[in-house]
Amino acid sequence: MKMDSIHQQIQVAFRYPLHFTTGVFDPANPLLGRVIGDDADRSPAPVVFVVDRGLLPGHPDIVAAIERYCEAHREVVALAAPVLLVPGGEAVKNDWHHVADIHRLIHRGALCRHSYVIGVGGGAVLDVVGFAAATAHRGIRLIRIPTTVLSQDDSAVGVKNGINGYGKKNFLGTFATPWAVINDSSFLPTLHDRDWRGGISEAIKAALIRDPDFFDFIERHAAALKARDLPLMEEVVRRSAVLHLTHIAQGGDPFEQGSSRPLDYGHWSAHKLEALTDYRMRHGEAVGIGIALDTTYAHLTGALGEAEWRRVIDVLQAVGLAIYTPELSEHLDDPDDPRGVLAGLAEFREHLGGELTILLLNGIGRSFDCHDIDTAMMILSIEVLRRRSAADTQRA
Amino acid sequence: MKMDSIHQQIQVAFRYPLHFTTGVFDPANPLLGRVIGDDADRSPAPVVFVVDRGLLPGHPDIVAAIERYCEAHREVVALAAPVLLVPGGEAVKNDWHHVADIHRLIHRGALCRHSYVIGVGGGAVLDVVGFAAATAHRGIRLIRIPTTVLSQDDSAVGVKNGINGYGKKNFLGTFATPWAVINDSSFLPTLHDRDWRGGISEAIKAALIRDPDFFDFIERHAAALKARDLPLMEEVVRRSAVLHLTHIAQGGDPFEQGSSRPLDYGHWSAHKLEALTDYRMRHGEAVGIGIALDTTYAHLTGALGEAEWRRVIDVLQAVGLAIYTPELSEHLDDPDDPRGVLAGLAEFREHLGGELTILLLNGIGRSFDCHDIDTAMMILSIEVLRRRSAADTQRA
Repeated sequence: MKMDSIHQQIQVAFRYPLHFTTGVFDPANPLLGRVIGDDADRSPAPVVFVVDRGLLPGHPDIVAAIERYCEAHREVVALAAPVLLVPGGEAVKNDWHHVADIHRLIHRGALCRHSYVIGVGGGAVLDVVGFAAATAHRGIRLIRIPTTVLSQDDSAVGVKNGINGYGKKNFLGTFATPWAVINDSSFLPTLHDRDWRGGISEAIKAALIRDPDFFDFIERHAAALKARDLPLMEEVVRRSAVLHLTHIAQGGDPFEQGSSRPLDYGHWSAHKLEALTDYRMRHGEAVGIGIALDTTYAHLTGALGEAEWRRVIDVLQAVGLAIYTPELSEHLDDPDDPRGVLAGLAEFREHLGGELTILLLNGIGRSFDCHDIDTAMMILSIEVLRRRSAADTQRA
Repeated sequence: MKMDSIHQQIQVAFRYPLHFTTGVFDPANPLLGRVIGDDADRSPAPVVFVVDRGLLPGHPDIVAAIERYCEAHREVVALAAPVLLVPGGEAVKNDWHHVADIHRLIHRGALCRHSYVIGVGGGAVLDVVGFAAATAHRGIRLIRIPTTVLSQDDSAVGVKNGINGYGKKNFLGTFATPWAVINDSSFLPTLHDRDWRGGISEAIKAALIRDPDFFDFIERHAAALKARDLPLMEEVVRRSAVLHLTHIAQGGDPFEQGSSRPLDYGHWSAHKLEALTDYRMRHGEAVGIGIALDTTYAHLTGALGEAEWRRVIDVLQAVGLAIYTPELSEHLDDPDDPRGVLAGLAEFREHLGGELTILLLNGIGRSFDCHDIDTAMMILSIEVLRRRSAADTQRA
């Protein structure tokens, strides 16, 4: 037999801006028109919009506002198809047909790779829109307009998309950079309390692994954040988004070819809790519990001091996040029981690939990779959180 | 309104080897085991195989051979699911269910991002397998084992995958690098004549746009290539594959974010002819005609001299490729008639995005981008090919 080899090396550069604004669909706001017009090689550029139906109660006028915006900026933006509304929340990621609907929209609008798909909504909707845009014509330009704290401070500024399949979160998806992201803080005041608070967990996560000053900031302003102080939340969103962008650009592995995933701190149990609650628990809420759990585990195994452990638990509760849910304590006798949270460890490894790699804290802003989780100690961590949560409930 | 921006920049590095071998599934051949074993962080690594059913007549034993190979190399390779057979040829790209079947295989095999999907077959099968692998867990390692001239000298060494949708070729797909490509020349002798010859068109294309010496080589050995000289074909495959790899790595735009597409020389009409013939015409055959057409257009518009034009037409015919098919001459009165080849210009632009950009030759190994095609001159080019082909048929 013959044998010889050629080694191919490719470097691909991606760039995208994250813009901060208010009133993105106000016809007087030039931002979106500029984002499209500055780089369109056909003017006006064909554009389709996919909008989260969950926005309608707070923004009943949004479809008309989008149409008015396109009309006002018709020299650069050409609405190639009617605005498509899709359901909001994780449910949208469980049904392949929403992806097919967006593909059909792209087909009917005769969009090309230099046209624009604009997603407006929470992280789940943007995940679906991103997957559809990334797979049509091998990638149509995607503009994300995230409307929740969670999507503005975390998921929408990153390089992932995905939908769920076979009961596995994000089973289908790709790594794909957006063309641009526009964070419009005027969407935040209309959020329900659960969505306002839920997104703070990802900011706490980013602070815990990367930025102790930011953790101090959240700690100091926890009560005001819980009480819906908008300027403070804008600051939290911005600092969290920048931490996420910086990690992706400078972490050395933007498309996650290796095994280490610091941005997934607390996520192994969070993903599992979402599935165990049939997604009644939202991602941000589940991440809050996941942070509480892995921080407690780090404390009980001796990696993290008690004072720091208390600070983390306290800040989660102070911003209004739960640190425990009864699903955590179910089906723990068999670590492989798919109805128990511990099965989330194996599922997390399968999704990310390679060796099991769980990030643990050994300080605020300091962390290390752990490849072996002691199941008995994790069960004890759950029990600690259960008691702490019960005590707080009694006090309240 | 407020407005400010952060600019994100990401560099992603991709590497993959192209190996040349014979008898890849001979248990004594260590190559595939090494490709998997050298980098697996779990040993043995879970692996699934998707095999082109079109291989069975020439290789009735292939599934058993794969199983024997995995058994012989069981310390590094663990077959995670039974070998999946899928239909060969372009038809496989027209049916989403084959992608879903591969996703289900990946799910059932509990593959992670560091596991392996191995596709064995022609370019169409590898396109489908590649799309499924690229979208499961945001990209599972893909090993391509192309078995036709076309896939070995062109498509399988590149960074694309895709399936057809809404009557549009490659409407769904991504850019994704393989983990490794293994060109096994022992598959080539069992090809039908059509598949043996068809793949030469992509080599001629690569030579025409990049390498006049390689064009001379093909010209000199055209008769022997047509007569199925295997060592010569191995040389053609290797030189063509290297030209493709080099363009992708050094062309400055591996994931085609711009508008220029030199590797798609002759492809606007080729893609359309495939669709117009319901894919009875194979990609390589259609590319041969596409090269003849755009080379004739360049000659008639004065860009390319007559002697060079004749060399191109002659070499296509000498290796056994057609330069004309009656579908070229149908429905030419309306350039937008979707039943006519001219509609392929607009469809090509839509697929690639941006401005219409057609590469034309102004010499052997020299080319330029053209953004405006003269329809009347293109119709005349078709007529020239029709007459030339008819004259040759009469002579024969």
